[in-house]
Amino acid sequence: MCRACAQDHRAALSCRERIGDYLARLPLLSHLAPEEVEELTAASCPRELCDGQWLFAEGEPADRFFLVRAGQIVLFRQSADGRECIVAVVGQDELLGEEQIFDEHPVRSLNARAVGPTALLSISRNSLRRLVDQSPTVRHAFLQTIDRRQRLLLDHIERLTLQNAQGRLVAYLLGEAKLSPDGRRVRLRIPKHALASHLAIQPETLSRVMSRLKASGKIREERGSMLLDTARLREDLEPAENLGPSWGCPGPPPGDDTLRRPGR
Amino acid sequence: MCRACAQDHRAALSCRERIGDYLARLPLLSHLAPEEVEELTAASCPRELCDGQWLFAEGEPADRFFLVRAGQIVLFRQSADGRECIVAVVGQDELLGEEQIFDEHPVRSLNARAVGPTALLSISRNSLRRLVDQSPTVRHAFLQTIDRRQRLLLDHIERLTLQNAQGRLVAYLLGEAKLSPDGRRVRLRIPKHALASHLAIQPETLSRVMSRLKASGKIREERGSMLLDTARLREDLEPAENLGPSWGCPGPPPGDDTLRRPGR
Repeated sequence: MCRACAQDHRAALSCRERIGDYLARLPLLSHLAPEEVEELTAASCPRELCDGQWLFAEGEPADRFFLVRAGQIVLFRQSADGRECIVAVVGQDELLGEEQIFDEHPVRSLNARAVGPTALLSISRNSLRRLVDQSPTVRHAFLQTIDRRQRLLLDHIERLTLQNAQGRLVAYLLGEAKLSPDGRRVRLRIPKHALASHLAIQPETLSRVMSRLKASGKIREERGSMLLDTARLREDLEPAENLGPSWGCPGPPPGDDTLRRPGR
Repeated sequence: MCRACAQDHRAALSCRERIGDYLARLPLLSHLAPEEVEELTAASCPRELCDGQWLFAEGEPADRFFLVRAGQIVLFRQSADGRECIVAVVGQDELLGEEQIFDEHPVRSLNARAVGPTALLSISRNSLRRLVDQSPTVRHAFLQTIDRRQRLLLDHIERLTLQNAQGRLVAYLLGEAKLSPDGRRVRLRIPKHALASHLAIQPETLSRVMSRLKASGKIREERGSMLLDTARLREDLEPAENLGPSWGCPGPPPGDDTLRRPGR
């Protein structure tokens, strides 16, 4: 229960109802029994952040997890001299801060900060732990979420290692475009300097590459967003990003069969 | 049951006994009930790979997971032109290939290949799935393993983004040294060209940085391994890697309190 609501019994009841409705319609939790939704609702309270406000910092105890109801949160590491490495942007209805769910003394492995006004639901870690333990449906959905996240991290490492600056940007834009209804439109969710740090390239290089892509007509600006010529952009990628559907199904590796191919 | 053993009933029994003993003493599985060990043993068969042999390839169906009994496996992505991005080295008694445990049609997200002669235990994915579902102990240990892995990926992304070539190598060596009994000795587990690709630096740059570190006495070669002057190497790191114990607990971020510090 949030402190603000607790002062007013009627407001509290309506706040609780809204939280319950929200939780019940989340895909991750859609198969929960009503009493499980009830339990989770009781362990939740709303939280609002303004643009740039920190949610938590690396090294802090991790006693709560969060659901993003509106807005977005960037997850990042930070060096002592203030440089940032943005690892992920967590958007609407996504989970964050649920790591180390079964550790005795969990600590944050990342920093989290709002980009734009952001509304969250903050839920005690123990209630998620109980749910993952009790409900096979939540458990499966939870493990699938973690797997998806691990794949995103692997994709990111692959881009950082095998792509040049242009390849990193193009791969990023194509990935973001997949989230739009027509699969071609991108509205940057983080500022350009943050995007440059995420892709481990200099801000000036990012601007240069972006201008080059616009000049060639592969990206067109349109009412504050970018419209991608996805086919031509895909041609531009280093081979690493052109491995087939979902960027990850290479044909059999070339060369000596016993050493270069799967041995099963 | 392995095919080789199945031809000889007595050999089969002894093979099964050895597998059972091995499984029962693994930390991940040490709290299993005898009948659970029995079930897992029945679902297992030994597998041996020679140096360079592939275990599986990205995009293949993922119907088995593996335990490394001896030797090691590199996990990597590969570009169409053959360049590799090594993501991790999996060593003795470690788990691999267990991702997407609750997906209906799981596929490999990485390639896996032996480095040196390697002995594995290959176990059906469904048996792990059952164990994770049935046994809270296995479930907790399993989720902790996945969390540890996610942290390693985050550390790797942080290094690739915030460190220069020397910083990446030094951070890697310090990490490897932690695995040795005295915390100072490193024997490279992957060839130098593979290490260069893992750290996303050119092989020539790797050689140059390595020579520089040796010339300065921060690394000393000794009977085929390297002895690190860990204190001096740590001084050399970019600030990002010097955040405190376990390389990851920054002090409060500088600047405006409401925007730059955790808001709880």
